[in-house]
Amino acid sequence: MASPPLFEFVLRLADDRLVLAQRTAEWCGHGPILEEDIALANISLDLLGQAQLLLSLAGQVEGQGRDADALAYWRDEREFRNLQIAELPKGDFGFTIVRQFLFSAWAAPYLEALSKATHDDLAGIAAKSVKENRYHLRHSAEWVVRLGDGTEESHSRVQASLDQLWPWTGELFYQDEVDAALPGIAPDNAATKAPWEATVKDVLAKAGLQIPDVPMRMVGGRKGRHTEFLGHMLAEMQILARSHPGATW
Amino acid sequence: MASPPLFEFVLRLADDRLVLAQRTAEWCGHGPILEEDIALANISLDLLGQAQLLLSLAGQVEGQGRDADALAYWRDEREFRNLQIAELPKGDFGFTIVRQFLFSAWAAPYLEALSKATHDDLAGIAAKSVKENRYHLRHSAEWVVRLGDGTEESHSRVQASLDQLWPWTGELFYQDEVDAALPGIAPDNAATKAPWEATVKDVLAKAGLQIPDVPMRMVGGRKGRHTEFLGHMLAEMQILARSHPGATW
Repeated sequence: MASPPLFEFVLRLADDRLVLAQRTAEWCGHGPILEEDIALANISLDLLGQAQLLLSLAGQVEGQGRDADALAYWRDEREFRNLQIAELPKGDFGFTIVRQFLFSAWAAPYLEALSKATHDDLAGIAAKSVKENRYHLRHSAEWVVRLGDGTEESHSRVQASLDQLWPWTGELFYQDEVDAALPGIAPDNAATKAPWEATVKDVLAKAGLQIPDVPMRMVGGRKGRHTEFLGHMLAEMQILARSHPGATW
Repeated sequence: MASPPLFEFVLRLADDRLVLAQRTAEWCGHGPILEEDIALANISLDLLGQAQLLLSLAGQVEGQGRDADALAYWRDEREFRNLQIAELPKGDFGFTIVRQFLFSAWAAPYLEALSKATHDDLAGIAAKSVKENRYHLRHSAEWVVRLGDGTEESHSRVQASLDQLWPWTGELFYQDEVDAALPGIAPDNAATKAPWEATVKDVLAKAGLQIPDVPMRMVGGRKGRHTEFLGHMLAEMQILARSHPGATW
């Protein structure tokens, strides 16, 4: 791979958040209750803000004059480095909530470690994100419990979402030569698995939900391999910027 | 009209914001640049937050057990009391910006007056909204200038949006027996016209835009008469809550 490891690394962090923000934004104005509409919009905004900071940083690291907008709107599907779990369609409200929970439970220890990185800009973005992620995790965990421990229908639907999402969690713990090339910067992602599992087990137990008995898959989002869903999402997200390049319509 | 004036009055304030929040939320994830995506989402969230507070208050005032969600999701088109300018389709980015500017420029003096109302809850919501509206006004005014004073295309498109929107501004200054029944609470809406005009003239002059030479119409949003566009918007906004009443999907 020709790109420098730091560029790849920052892009991975950025794309997780850009893509997940986009999926969460699909709830804008369509939440089940006003309060949840507001909460999801806030989560989406936090993630989008993190993505913007990270994409700016990636552009600086790359040093070829691409800014956050160029990276968000002018890369094609195979240049995206997000986890596949982030690109799956939003599903029902429970699916969105379970995904947010599984992601935030991983992001908590990951961002914590990243906030101690020897790269000041990255450490700063991570420290800001730690706080925002704390709210995302608490909010989504509360909903997982509420839905799991709710009506028969809400319980079975949220268990089904968990079953669907589980295989995709394997990729959360991916690391490769990009990380290895960045000692002192890239967190040891193997070390995030134990705290992630502890959080997940604790919340699922409270919710009366079962950990799915299916293998966690390791898929290729970090290398630019994606499900069919990302292309559709990007087409929608990028059309305005691409149809009026340089303009603001 | 059977409803008590205070209920009607609060509903009018709430619905302007609920409907405009919804139109603005349609930009979520589709902005022309990341920063603007974030700004529009923030504006939408502010308006939605104001709407939620006002709808809660309306429910309390009514005293029939309807909460903010019941009022948002279970009223039909003819029960909505918003200004028609708020319900027009989002149009292009310039249209959305011009509408926000025209609305915020009116809301500024209106909310300022309302923050001195003898009704504590209303005065408190208004005081909070004054601050948020200040940002909405500044942001949209900056864009009006940038687009008006931009390229030939951006100038002619934003002038066209202004021409389209202008007739609807008449309704901003509507007042009737509902307001008359609430001395010390309902601001004198005739007094908001001069400061509104001063702001509009100032910004349009900087933008090089012409005040349209078309009459400002007085239309019936405050009495529940709406354009065809509101029904479509509500259908989309209300479907989730209505298809699973009491559930959270």
